[in-house]
Order: sequence, then structure tokens, then C-alpha cells
Amino acid sequence: MDGDLSIVGKRLPRPDTAEKATGAALYSTDINLPGALIGKVLRSPLPHARILKIDKTKAEVLPGVKAVITFEDVPKRLYNISALDIIATERIVKGFKKDQYVLTDKARHVGDAVAAVAASNESIAEAALELIHVEYEELPAVFGPEEAMKPDAPRIHDSADNNIAWYQPLPTNVGDVKKGFDEADYIIEETFRTSKSIHCQLEPTACMARFDSSGKLTIWSSSQEVFPKRRKIAELFDMREGMIRWITPHVGGVFGNGIGLRAEPVCVALAKKTGMPVKMQYSREEQFIATETRHPVILTGKIGVTKDGSITALQVNVIMDAGAYISCSSAVANNVMARFAWLYRCPNTRGEVNIVYTNTPVAGAFRGFGNPQAMWALEQLIDMASERIGMEPMEFRLLNHRRTGDPSWIPHVPIENCAFDECIKLGADSIGWKDEMKKEGAKRQGMGMAIIMQVSGTFPINLEHTNAFIKLNEDGSASLMVSACDMGQGILGALGQIAAEELGLCPEDIHLVSGDTDITMFDPGQHGSRSCYVMGNAVMKAARQAKVKLLERAAKTLEVSSDDLEAREGWINVKGSPDKGISIADVARDAIYNFKGESLNISGKCSWEPRSNSPSCQAAFAHVEVDVDTAEVKVLKIVLAHDIGRAINPMTVEGQLEGAIVQSIGYCLSEAFRINQNSGIIESDNFTTYKIPSAPDLPKIKVILVEQPVASGPFGAKSVGEAGMNAIAPAIGNAVYDAVSVRIRDLPITPEKVLGALLEKKRDCSI
Amino acid sequence: MDGDLSIVGKRLPRPDTAEKATGAALYSTDINLPGALIGKVLRSPLPHARILKIDKTKAEVLPGVKAVITFEDVPKRLYNISALDIIATERIVKGFKKDQYVLTDKARHVGDAVAAVAASNESIAEAALELIHVEYEELPAVFGPEEAMKPDAPRIHDSADNNIAWYQPLPTNVGDVKKGFDEADYIIEETFRTSKSIHCQLEPTACMARFDSSGKLTIWSSSQEVFPKRRKIAELFDMREGMIRWITPHVGGVFGNGIGLRAEPVCVALAKKTGMPVKMQYSREEQFIATETRHPVILTGKIGVTKDGSITALQVNVIMDAGAYISCSSAVANNVMARFAWLYRCPNTRGEVNIVYTNTPVAGAFRGFGNPQAMWALEQLIDMASERIGMEPMEFRLLNHRRTGDPSWIPHVPIENCAFDECIKLGADSIGWKDEMKKEGAKRQGMGMAIIMQVSGTFPINLEHTNAFIKLNEDGSASLMVSACDMGQGILGALGQIAAEELGLCPEDIHLVSGDTDITMFDPGQHGSRSCYVMGNAVMKAARQAKVKLLERAAKTLEVSSDDLEAREGWINVKGSPDKGISIADVARDAIYNFKGESLNISGKCSWEPRSNSPSCQAAFAHVEVDVDTAEVKVLKIVLAHDIGRAINPMTVEGQLEGAIVQSIGYCLSEAFRINQNSGIIESDNFTTYKIPSAPDLPKIKVILVEQPVASGPFGAKSVGEAGMNAIAPAIGNAVYDAVSVRIRDLPITPEKVLGALLEKKRDCSI
Repeated sequence: MDGDLSIVGKRLPRPDTAEKATGAALYSTDINLPGALIGKVLRSPLPHARILKIDKTKAEVLPGVKAVITFEDVPKRLYNISALDIIATERIVKGFKKDQYVLTDKARHVGDAVAAVAASNESIAEAALELIHVEYEELPAVFGPEEAMKPDAPRIHDSADNNIAWYQPLPTNVGDVKKGFDEADYIIEETFRTSKSIHCQLEPTACMARFDSSGKLTIWSSSQEVFPKRRKIAELFDMREGMIRWITPHVGGVFGNGIGLRAEPVCVALAKKTGMPVKMQYSREEQFIATETRHPVILTGKIGVTKDGSITALQVNVIMDAGAYISCSSAVANNVMARFAWLYRCPNTRGEVNIVYTNTPVAGAFRGFGNPQAMWALEQLIDMASERIGMEPMEFRLLNHRRTGDPSWIPHVPIENCAFDECIKLGADSIGWKDEMKKEGAKRQGMGMAIIMQVSGTFPINLEHTNAFIKLNEDGSASLMVSACDMGQGILGALGQIAAEELGLCPEDIHLVSGDTDITMFDPGQHGSRSCYVMGNAVMKAARQAKVKLLERAAKTLEVSSDDLEAREGWINVKGSPDKGISIADVARDAIYNFKGESLNISGKCSWEPRSNSPSCQAAFAHVEVDVDTAEVKVLKIVLAHDIGRAINPMTVEGQLEGAIVQSIGYCLSEAFRINQNSGIIESDNFTTYKIPSAPDLPKIKVILVEQPVASGPFGAKSVGEAGMNAIAPAIGNAVYDAVSVRIRDLPITPEKVLGALLEKKRDCSI
Repeated sequence: MDGDLSIVGKRLPRPDTAEKATGAALYSTDINLPGALIGKVLRSPLPHARILKIDKTKAEVLPGVKAVITFEDVPKRLYNISALDIIATERIVKGFKKDQYVLTDKARHVGDAVAAVAASNESIAEAALELIHVEYEELPAVFGPEEAMKPDAPRIHDSADNNIAWYQPLPTNVGDVKKGFDEADYIIEETFRTSKSIHCQLEPTACMARFDSSGKLTIWSSSQEVFPKRRKIAELFDMREGMIRWITPHVGGVFGNGIGLRAEPVCVALAKKTGMPVKMQYSREEQFIATETRHPVILTGKIGVTKDGSITALQVNVIMDAGAYISCSSAVANNVMARFAWLYRCPNTRGEVNIVYTNTPVAGAFRGFGNPQAMWALEQLIDMASERIGMEPMEFRLLNHRRTGDPSWIPHVPIENCAFDECIKLGADSIGWKDEMKKEGAKRQGMGMAIIMQVSGTFPINLEHTNAFIKLNEDGSASLMVSACDMGQGILGALGQIAAEELGLCPEDIHLVSGDTDITMFDPGQHGSRSCYVMGNAVMKAARQAKVKLLERAAKTLEVSSDDLEAREGWINVKGSPDKGISIADVARDAIYNFKGESLNISGKCSWEPRSNSPSCQAAFAHVEVDVDTAEVKVLKIVLAHDIGRAINPMTVEGQLEGAIVQSIGYCLSEAFRINQNSGIIESDNFTTYKIPSAPDLPKIKVILVEQPVASGPFGAKSVGEAGMNAIAPAIGNAVYDAVSVRIRDLPITPEKVLGALLEKKRDCSI
């Protein structure tokens, strides 16, 4: 098959690279409309407070102020900010509670939106915020989930006893864990903690909202989930979906931060109130306190193993900190449990979660979506179990990982193809898994590994229905219309390569149109590493439909049967006779500019839904150096072997993995979202106090792509979007243990924690 | 059939009315891009001059100037500015000569584009124009076609001997006019002249051009013919069509002025040179001297009639003034001849035209496209012939007009339905055709009539291939994507009504997306009164395709056969059982948000080409008063009876006709495009010196719609766009003759001409 492909598999620059690199790309904040106002939000300085009264009279009379709105001015309708609510509710994951207003009547975290203004410019808007007087009744606050669950904890939502927003067992539990643990020779039970990290995408939240004279609302906002979010806005403001047009300009990264509504509801409320276009842009500080973060979890994992290395039972108990509102916590929680229980063959699994409200910023969707939390625990637990039975941890994994045809965590959906063995072998060879590590002196080295699986799309958890439409131009190029948001992952380029390959065009012949609900057909959004796998199929089928028409016309001209034709890089020829042919441009131009009464604008369309989520396998290897004096952990090298099925564009696949490795290193080593435990104030609300990795922090990185094309993917492709986020932290954790024999259970692995552990170990040894 | 229609036939406001009325609508000039430059053109002050040298050094060093371009900087490629070139060349009309450069090396009229600048703002751009020094060699100039054809006239183009740009006989001549005139009892031969009038649309030419980093060019420009014009820009700048995206913002009127390229080529050249976005906007003065006007013609018409009122021969000889470049003159010329020879049954016809270059602004497409010139002559000639044989002119017309099934001017395309008899009867009754007119005193009254036919689209002259795509939203509304430009005629509303009727939706359920070549499929453009008739069919068929899917799904839910269902105003029910049904919104939402694995974004698409141009018939009646002292002509009343087939929206049809009546009154009575016969300077380049009618100038207007639905039109509709422009002037001319017995053969009918004719008549009588 490979030999037949001319476009798929090529290392091509992303189509938006030059625009973005030169600064020419237009983002949401670059949208200018005549007369547009600037919107700003007044945020609560208190973590928990009843709002007794808001006096907005002074702000309203400030010249240039067009509107000041509060709880009184927004829909009296509770909602859930997550777009996943719309596409998941009727399926497996429940718990998308509606617990939030556009502007709140009670502040539940520092930064909660209390009021908003629209003014003719930014400085007037900021001055107006100062003039709004809010009378608060301060309430006791609680910042940690364990404290929040205590009977005497302050109650954050009336609907949640003990602040438990949602409880759920894993719906796909199998077997009997009690029996499983009884059968085990060893049981290891450990508690791990993960941190509240945040996306740190380059582009802060920005949007523009405008009602036209017919009442039609246009929203410009970089976003991952245009259709479900349009529906959310419709429901919130009691509008019809068709009366809202959501346009996504260039997106400066999202990593899941765009799955929930952000500034849009307030922006729409201000536009509605003023009758004028309103633009909003969050500051970096607002981005930290007023958009969703990753969920911190307290995860107790329990594994039962036999002496010969079988896993008899896996149990996972999670306490998940939702922050002030629930958003998509139940879906993330489900993933934490499911991914924990799913990776290895095990007849008895059990998971349950308590999702807890705290007086902290809301947690929501973030690349990996529960998988990083689960793997941080599971993949260290696996090393601990291996050690207990005296088996090499790689061998333990090779013995126990799931295989082709095994059930996935959705029992009726089997794993289409499992390439763990190849990934582990190639990765281990590359990093030198058997190499001796320096274990003496101040700087000690260690190596660790972890494996993970990542679904390609969320079938059957969420709606996976997607669409594509393609039309040919007279020059033989094509416009491809899809509702994909290119948030930096390069999906538009990949879909373009798929369309070009299928239609027989060159990659530069594909013109992508995306992110406009009036134009493109439905897609649920970019999440769950679904886009290439799911949308790629729709694009391929739409292109195929167009190709049928293309070849039919070419066949007529060439006086052959269309079955005898093949198309490649702009040229159609008789199979086996490369010279007997016609260019696609000639066929398309003759079809469009046809003066013989046989006109046709060749096009194709496809509505598509997968019946699988063909997961990708991955093995990560970390080589670290720990300075026992400073307790600093330095990552020397990361090797990541990823089973991509088929790399549509190996360069962007590698880019996705490399980016995720960097993000994972920050997640693992330095990113700590600090909330003052007295005031609830977020102390890490910028890049000085919240440390993401920069170039000097990075190790050598080696990405290995394993290609075993799957039948269900477009040209055999599986996913890559989130996978790189999941295995790095536990691999580093295992490597740290290998280097200095201390196991850090709480993220991030800071020098303080390592030092503490080293001291404790020393003390234990000296006893 | 009428009883079945719930949306088609409704008097609905145009969808863009509120946006335009409130000033919220965004036009080309409202497009703002970061860093956009302003482009300005340096125009020749001389009517005819060789450009010896251009010194641009001073302009180039002016701070803020980013580029100064001349002939040296633009493609060395002659082109024809008319978009019709692209869609007509392979058919019947030839003569689209390429005779123009983007910036010229020889000035051929005052206003010819000689150089252009791009600067950071408008005042710098204007200052820079002043600093460009052009050394001209002034050449003798010629401003009238008859003088230009003389052997010793200055030669304007090397390629045109005697300045004859193009000669052509009418390709559809029939019979033998010599024989026909021999058989006539009377022969009347008269020469008529029409004037160089201009469109005077509200919105002056404006556009923005931007190249992105991949070299893709986006043009924002209100335009009638996006696809052919995109192709023209591609050819001119040696680009692929797909590398150009042409977006049409709201259009502030065009009336044919947007069929040719205007500022776009210079704007693109500046954007290419600077690598930055460039915006251009013409002043009103530039609009007069640098965009196309209507063609002035000198038309000699000759008619042979028998005593009993048969027409034995019709001959038309035209000298057409193209101005400095040919543009679409040959197509207009063809229309002048064809419409002259076609309206009445006549076995022998002959037409020929000489298209002549003069040193005046270019003439091109303008509402009516040759028909107003032809009718000005023919319909007065008919009155003169009637008078000669002593037959009432209405009776003469009723006797001779073409009828259903007669050949149209394209012999193999018969007239589908002719409603002349109804139009004439209803119009005559309404105006009181038989009423006595006051023929004494200073103010004398008269009545005149004229009939015309106007094609619905240009089949088979031009390519008529069009497309539509429609997709349903989850609320049961639909996005309709077509390449129609709503230039004020309300076509988008009409297409929306057609889609709503066919799909069973309400009109407000249709969301129109138009005017973006990356998004909508091909259409040749808005001209030839084609849009409703041609595009309406494509929209209807696309909607029908979507409806099949819609009803299939509804049938499954309702457990009936889809043949038993009907859809109307958002509701699908079992025929005969209005209560047994389901809303379209429910079906569409279930299809999009389908959690049972049966997802579908219901949609439909259609490529369509007509096989007819079903012409509309029309009868116009004018009641005028002529003051024999002041020689002023006052139009008291106009009645226009128009055969629309089916009025999709009677209100917009009437609006089209009313607007055309007003425009015709200006054309007939006051609009004179004055060129100084020494300097070539356009003296009428604003609304003080070029007088268009305003409210006090207007008569009572009565529009009568005759509805006889035709099989080939969508729901029976024929055209209306241009028809109102053709009959008013000759009806007024005939009425003036009826009032004061003088016949004005030259447009406009100014008091000076009437006075001259009255004095001449007095002198003749007194001899």
C-alpha cells in the first residue's frame, strides 16, 4: 500500500506555518468591527462570598461606558460550561450538572465573574470596573477536596452534600476485585497526587460578539468545539442555533482550554445589552484564574499480582478536585478510572470517584483528559509491583499489556491493532535500556519507562458524527470544507493530505475552509484525539465521491472506462500507461466552464461516524540525572515510540509528540498552580510564578513512529493529539526511583520533594 | 399550484434591509486589516498622449510611501476588463479584444490609469501622486465615433484601422431585407442617438487585496461576477484560480458597473509589490471617469410595413462608441441589434455594427445591456410606422409582437410564454389609454407606450452553469450557499424563499452564505437578468435533494412512506393529516445529534444549467405634460405591466421595476455625460453636473405584475432585473410626440432639444 501513496506520508510544513511565523495570521483579537466596544469582567477577590448588593451607578455614568451588567442582567439559567455536555449526555458518561450562571450571585473562587462592563475602549472599561461597588458577605472557604468532604466544611453549592458534586463507579468494571486480590500473591496499594496545572497556550482567551439587525449573532472566537458551543449559547440565551454564526479565526493553541465556554457568554450578554459589537480579551492573569485547569486528583491505586507476574486485580479510588464548578469533571473522572483499569489484561477491576467542589478555579479539559493522572499512578505502581516480584519492569509490561483483539475499556469495542511490542523494543533499543547507570557521586542517573494507550476519538462515549464537503476549482485545486479547528496540531494540513491523496491532487491544491458554522457541516469538535482518525475518514469519503465524477468525465474524454483510470498529483492516466492521460485541471476546467451543455462543479460530501476508536500504543523512556546535593532532577533524554497506524504527515506527528513531551516535562517537574491556603488567591498567575519549561530545560528527544496501518483509519492512521502527554511523567518518576531509590508520588517532582524523600530514606536507612 | 405555495409569492422584506437601513452592513470599504495600506491611482489629465517618461523618485522617498508603480511594474499582458469575456468567448458573441494594460503606457482618455501608489494613509498617498512627474507627448484626440472613423482621425490603438475596434453583423439575421423592403408599402428610416450615461450606484468602487504568506491572494470587493473575475485576475497575474479567494462584502448597488474589473488589478499589483494588504476606494469623480458607462450609439433603424400593418423588413445599423477600450462592447452591440430585430414578427432582418474607439471613458455593461438603446429607436419607429399607415400604435403592436412558441432571437430557442396581450391590456386600462389629452395652452399632455422583451438569463449566449449547496442546522434552519451577489435586487431573499418553499421551511429559517469563491460553488455572475431564473432552479433542486433525506428520516419516525409526507413552514405531516407529523427541527436535530449511530447532516447540492431563457414581456405607458413655453417635459404617470411568470416576492419584483423606472426617467430626461470637446475633460463628474432624478422629479408609478408561471422557471418565475430599464424612455418619447407633435431622436430629452424641435416645427409649419 505504501508504494501507492504519493502525498500521505510526506513530511510537509503545516499550511499555516508561514502565516503564523510572519505574524500575518489573524487571531480573534485581530477582528476589528466598526464601533466595537471592549468588554471586561469584574472578578471576585474573595474565594467564597455571598453577594449582597452591587452598586453600578458610578460605573454606568462614566463617559464611554455603554453597559454594566450583573447577575440581574444575564439569563436566570444554570448551565455547564463544557461543550462535552452536549455530545455526551445521552451516552455513557453522566454528571454534567448545570451549576453555573454567566455572572454569579455567589462567588465561589477568587476570580469568579461577578459583573461586566462594555465601554468604548479598554482603559474606560478598566476604570469602570473600579467604580462598581460590590457588597460581599465573606464565607469560610475550603481549598482542598479532602477538607471539603468533611461534614463541617463550608457548603459551596446548595445541591452538593459534603461538597460532593458527583459520585460514580467506573461503568465498565469487570469481575470481582475482592476475589482478584484474594488470588494475588502480592498486593500493592499506593496513593498518588497530581497537580492543578494549566494549559499556557500562547493566545489568551479572546472573542468578539455582534448581533445584526435581524437578531443574528456572530461570535468570533478561537475554539475547539464550535457546534456544541453554538448550541450551548443558543440554549443559554434562548436562541435558535441557526441564528448564531460561530467563526473561528486562527487559534493560538488551546490544548483543551477551548472545550469549555470562556469569555463568550459574558461577551454575548454585553453585545445583547448594548446592541453593539463587543470584544473581550483576557489578560494572562485572567487566563490563570478564570479558565479551566487540569484536575488535581488523589488517586489510590491497588494492584494484585502473582509471583509469576499475572495481574489478578486492579482497583482505583479517586478523589477529584473539580474546583468551584463541575464542568466536564465526570468525563475526566471516568477517563482516570477507565485508563487505569484498561491498559493491562486483568480479570477484576474496580474504580470509583468522588468529584468534589472546592473554592478554587474550575478544572476542565486538558490534553490527556484524565490519562496523565491515571498513568502517573498506574505506571509507577507497575514498577513497584515488578520490583516486588523481582521481574524486570519492561518484561512485566510485555507480559501483561493488552493485545490486538482484546476488549478495550468499552468491552464490545475490541482493540484493532496493538503495537506495544514494537514500540517497547524500538524505544528500549534507542535509549539503551540495558545500559549501566551511574549510581554513585553527587549526580546519579536512572532510567524509567511507561506505556500508555490513547484512543483515536471517543467512540462510543461521545457523539462522533462528522462531515466534509469538497468542491473543485477550475485550476484543478479544491476547497475542502470541514469544521476542524487547527489549534496547532496541524489537522488541516493532515486532512488536506488525505484529500489530496484520495483525489489525486498535490497538497498545495487543497484550500482549507474551516471553523464557520454557517458554512461547514457539523462536527462535535476537536477533542479525544479524534480529528485525523474521524474527520480524516469523512474527508477521504467526500474526496472519493468527487473523484468518481472526476474520473467519469476523464474517462469520457480519454474514451476508456473510469475503472481503468488512476489519479495522482494532478494527473489522471490510464493504469499502466502514464502518458495516456489528462490533467485534473483540464477536466475540472472543462466541467466548470463547459460550453457544450455538460456543466458540473465537481464536488463530494460525506456524513460519517466511526464504529471504532482504534487506540494508539506508546512506550516512553526517560533517562534522568538526580543531583543528590541539590535534589534537582535533570532529564537527559526522552525516547517516545508511538504506534500511529499511519503517519499522514510524519513531521506534524513528531511535532505533536515533541510538544507534548515538553509540556509533560513541565507538568512533571515544575508546573505548580499555587493557591494561597488562607486567601484563596492564585499565587501562580503568570510565567514567573508558574514555571513552564524553556529551551535550556529540555533533554534530547527522540520520537520513533511505528506504522502498522489499521483498516478503520484513513489510509490506516490512528491518533496522536494527546498521547504524548500521558507517559512522560511516570517514566521520569520511575527513572528518579531508578537513580536514587526514592519514589515521588505527588506531582510535580520538585527539588523540595526529592530532598525530603532523600532525607527520609537516609533516616530510614540509618535507623 | 398557487394554493399550495406558502412562502413563494409572499411580500417579504429583503433579508439585508435592516442591516443596510441601520448602517450596520459592512461594505468593502469597511474591511480593516492590520497594517493595510491605502492605494491611489494617478490618472491622465490628457485625453490622448504618449507617456515618454515617469519620474517617481520624489514620490518614492516620501515617508509613508511603500510603493509607486507604473506600466513597468504591472504584467506586460493586454487584457479585457469585462468578466463576460470569460463566459462568452467560446459561444456566439466574439470581439472581446484584449487592448488594455493594468497601468497604461499611452493615455487614451482623461482618467486613464498611469501610475499608482500605496502608502500608509490616504493623505500621504494623495501627496505622493502629486510628486510623480509624468512627461507626456500630447496627441490629437477624438471624442465622437463618427469623427473617429474618418481616415484622417487620430489613431487610438495600433490594432484598429479607422478606430474601428470591431465590426460585426448580427449573427442571427434572417431572410433578405432587400426583398422585404421591396415588398413594403412604406419604408421608414430614422437615425436615433443615445447618451453616455453612468450607473450612479451609491457605493463607489472599493476593494482590498492581501497576499498571505503562502502566496494566496484574498480580494474583498463588491462584485457581480466573482468567479470569472477571479479567473481574469489569475490570468493577468499568472496565478492559479485556487490561489485567489474573492470575497464579496455587502454591495451598495452596481447595475452592471461591477461586471468589469475596476480597482482590483491595480490593488493586487500594489499588494504584490508591497507584500502588504492594500485598500482602494474611488472618489465619486473617479467613479465617473474611471469606471464603465453605458454605450452611446448612433442607430439607424429602417422598417418596411404594408398598408395592413405587416412588417416586411427590419434593418438596424449601429455605430457604437466604445470609449478608449473595448471591454464588452461587442456583446452589448449584439444585444442592440438582436433586440431591435427580434421583438416583432418579421421575416427579413439585418443588423450590423461598427464599434469605434474614442478618447473617452470606457463604455461597458449597464442594466439593460443594449436593450435601452435598441428600444429607444425601435419603439419610436413603431409609432412612426403606425402613424404612417394610420393604425393605432397599440393595435400595431398587438398585431405584430412575437407570440408563445415563436423563435426568440436565437432561432432554436422558442419563446416559452408570451404575455404581451395581458400586459398591454392591463397597462392600457390602468393608465386610461383612450383618455383625451389636453392639446392646447402652454401645458400639453400626451401619452405614449412601448413594449419590450427581456431574457431570463443569457442562454445560449453565455455560460449559464450555476450551483447551490444547502445544509440543515439542528434547529431546522438551513444554510444556503450560492455564489449570488445581492447588489440590491434582493436575489438572496428570493433564493431563500425558493429554498424555504421547496424544503418546507419558513423564510427566516434560511441563512444565506454568498460571495466567497473558497466556499460557494461556481456561478458565472449576476447579469442578463439571470439570477432568479437560473440560480433559483439550482437552489430548488438542491433543496429537493435535502428534502428527500429529510422526509426519509421523518417517514421512519412516523412509520409511513416518505411519499405520503409533505413539508411546509417547518412541519412535516402525513398528507391529509395535518396533526400526524413532526417538526423539521426535530428531524434535523435527531439527524445531527444522533446517538443511535444514524448520524446525518442533511444536505443537498446541485449543478444546474438551463436550456432556455424564457423571456419576460412588458408594456410601459407614459403620461407626460410638455410646457411649450419652457419646453420642459414632466412625466405625470408611468404604468408598467410586467410578465414575471411567477413573482417569488412581489414586493422585491415591484421594487426592481420601480427603481428601474426612476433610473429610466433620468436616462430619458436629464442624465447627460458631458465631455469637453476640446480638452476631453469630463465635465459631469458629480451629482451637481450629472443630474439624476430625485423625489420631486418622479411621477405616479403603477406596477402591474402579470403572473403566468412557466415550466422552466423555479415555481414558474421569469426575470425582472433589467426589464424596467428598457421601455420607459421610448414610451416617454412617444408621449412627447403625442403631446406636442415633435419627435426627439437623441437622448436625453432636454428642454433645449424640445425647444429646438418646437421652433423647427413652427418654422416648418409657417413655411
